[in-house]
Amino acid sequence: MGKIFIDACFGKETPYTPVWMMRQAGRYLKEYQEVRKKAGDFLSLCHSPTLAAEVTLQPVEILDVDAAILFSDILVIPNEMGMKLRFASGEGPIFDEPIKSQEDIANLLDPQESAKKLSYVYETIKLVKKKLPKEKALIGFSGAPWTLATYMIEGKGTKTYTKVKKLIYTNPQMMHSLLQKVTQAVKFYLEEQIKAGVDAVQIFDSWANALEKPKYLEFSWNYIKEITSYLKAKYPHIAVIVFPKGIGAYLDDIDGEFDVFGVDWSTPMALAKEKLGNRYVLQGNLEPCRLYSKEATKECVTSLANIMKDGGHIFNLGHGILPDIPVENAKYFVNLCKEVSKTN
Amino acid sequence: MGKIFIDACFGKETPYTPVWMMRQAGRYLKEYQEVRKKAGDFLSLCHSPTLAAEVTLQPVEILDVDAAILFSDILVIPNEMGMKLRFASGEGPIFDEPIKSQEDIANLLDPQESAKKLSYVYETIKLVKKKLPKEKALIGFSGAPWTLATYMIEGKGTKTYTKVKKLIYTNPQMMHSLLQKVTQAVKFYLEEQIKAGVDAVQIFDSWANALEKPKYLEFSWNYIKEITSYLKAKYPHIAVIVFPKGIGAYLDDIDGEFDVFGVDWSTPMALAKEKLGNRYVLQGNLEPCRLYSKEATKECVTSLANIMKDGGHIFNLGHGILPDIPVENAKYFVNLCKEVSKTN
Repeated sequence: MGKIFIDACFGKETPYTPVWMMRQAGRYLKEYQEVRKKAGDFLSLCHSPTLAAEVTLQPVEILDVDAAILFSDILVIPNEMGMKLRFASGEGPIFDEPIKSQEDIANLLDPQESAKKLSYVYETIKLVKKKLPKEKALIGFSGAPWTLATYMIEGKGTKTYTKVKKLIYTNPQMMHSLLQKVTQAVKFYLEEQIKAGVDAVQIFDSWANALEKPKYLEFSWNYIKEITSYLKAKYPHIAVIVFPKGIGAYLDDIDGEFDVFGVDWSTPMALAKEKLGNRYVLQGNLEPCRLYSKEATKECVTSLANIMKDGGHIFNLGHGILPDIPVENAKYFVNLCKEVSKTN
Repeated sequence: MGKIFIDACFGKETPYTPVWMMRQAGRYLKEYQEVRKKAGDFLSLCHSPTLAAEVTLQPVEILDVDAAILFSDILVIPNEMGMKLRFASGEGPIFDEPIKSQEDIANLLDPQESAKKLSYVYETIKLVKKKLPKEKALIGFSGAPWTLATYMIEGKGTKTYTKVKKLIYTNPQMMHSLLQKVTQAVKFYLEEQIKAGVDAVQIFDSWANALEKPKYLEFSWNYIKEITSYLKAKYPHIAVIVFPKGIGAYLDDIDGEFDVFGVDWSTPMALAKEKLGNRYVLQGNLEPCRLYSKEATKECVTSLANIMKDGGHIFNLGHGILPDIPVENAKYFVNLCKEVSKTN
């Protein structure tokens, strides 16, 4: 038996439309919270292959989703490049010494060396693959260079992106030199994940919608394309998924070598289908807050199934699942997706 | 001599494309900072007609923009409806007792009474009109019901909109009853501004992009349309501008009775022109961070002038000007817009 998720990524016919959820290994599961307590803090959980593998597998067992996604954090890359990452409660991730100069960029650890230091991630992947049922897929991931570099410049989450935008408009060369270095690290990192056994990789560009279109294409999308072309040339059997969040108004300019385009909830699925559906499989895009209500969930799943009735679809949320969603509603979503899309 | 800004709003030919900037009366001007110091806190400045009029007029004098925009805050409405508004330094606006129940909504002051209590705003308008040169326009404004109601439910700025979204998906009736009441207040408020002398009104939907398309249309756009239809029927000579931020992927569903559609920086102007340009004048949309660099400013102004060379355009930023923009660059932007668009 093949993996239905991977078949769907490559546009093959499947007995139903597969489903998984972004952040499916997370706080809404009491089983996750127990492991997290055991680990101590969030980063310790990422750094422990045994515990990270355990939480990666939980949603497959509990919800019967069609793919597991590696439990980790996008900021492990800058951390291993030499920027000390910490998580402050209520504030999210923080780099106390953000990038301020060309010299800071030069001082970052070599991309290949950085990728090697992420061995705990590759170890997690190997442990997951040992236990994951054959018909389920394992998705590896990385943050997109733009999203990672933005954290590295801003030092923490931001509403305004003032530092990184000022840099883009006043010293674009410096931003490009940081992005080039991070892009190399992402390439090596995803390549090592593939060697460790993932069946697919997803590139999360969470902060895609911080940039106007011409700058998005220049400072983010071009680097994503560089990575996906590299991976598809070398590992054509690995499914490559991109998820640039909130760029529904830029779809006319989206091209490149990858298999699946992740549609966020702010991009109407019908629009994504019109612009990209003949070239890419589309993943998404239930607004995560719909999971507060079964009725609202059903309304959207039915609508998505109808829009995507000719295939080329993978069910998912349009952003990560929220920590206070009832597990029962998450199960309802997963079951319903399979039910409504059954082909016989 | 007529008002070039108003002529442009109604699609008439003008000697050049008029220009103003969102938040043009603000912290980047040292003259503003001086008045602000005199007033004490931000709300006291809003509540003082003399001082509010002074800062409203400053950018007209300093930058020679074609329109002044009333200095005030969108949250004065909920404040006068009985929710105590305060500004915490570094945190922005806060309602310590946000709306939690149908009873809280019932307890809000009557919309017409609330609008009457905003007399200090109408007084400001009268003072501005006395001093504003005849060829310049005065723009009044309000927050959109959705944006106001979101603040009233969340109690403060939010990245996740969890409370209000949970409400929308689990108790839509309650949200609608709040929106209906706020919509009435906005109608009366803008009507009183018109009676006091504004030449145009703009409805700011700053949090438009918090909602997926079907919910945006239901919980925000429908209420905006109700207000603009009411105003256009009663005051056809007043220009009505809408500014729903970040809904570039929803433009196929935009219709209604208004004159100008404000295009934010995340919606490419060429896309807005394609979808709306034959029905509405378009205002915008230079990414505010471009003002950090004259070169980046020029690149975008030239491009906008080219896209909109057939007319139907008002220059503006795609969001508010930032507090640390050099005044010199703001002047450069205003002059350049006029220069590149001169018709003779």
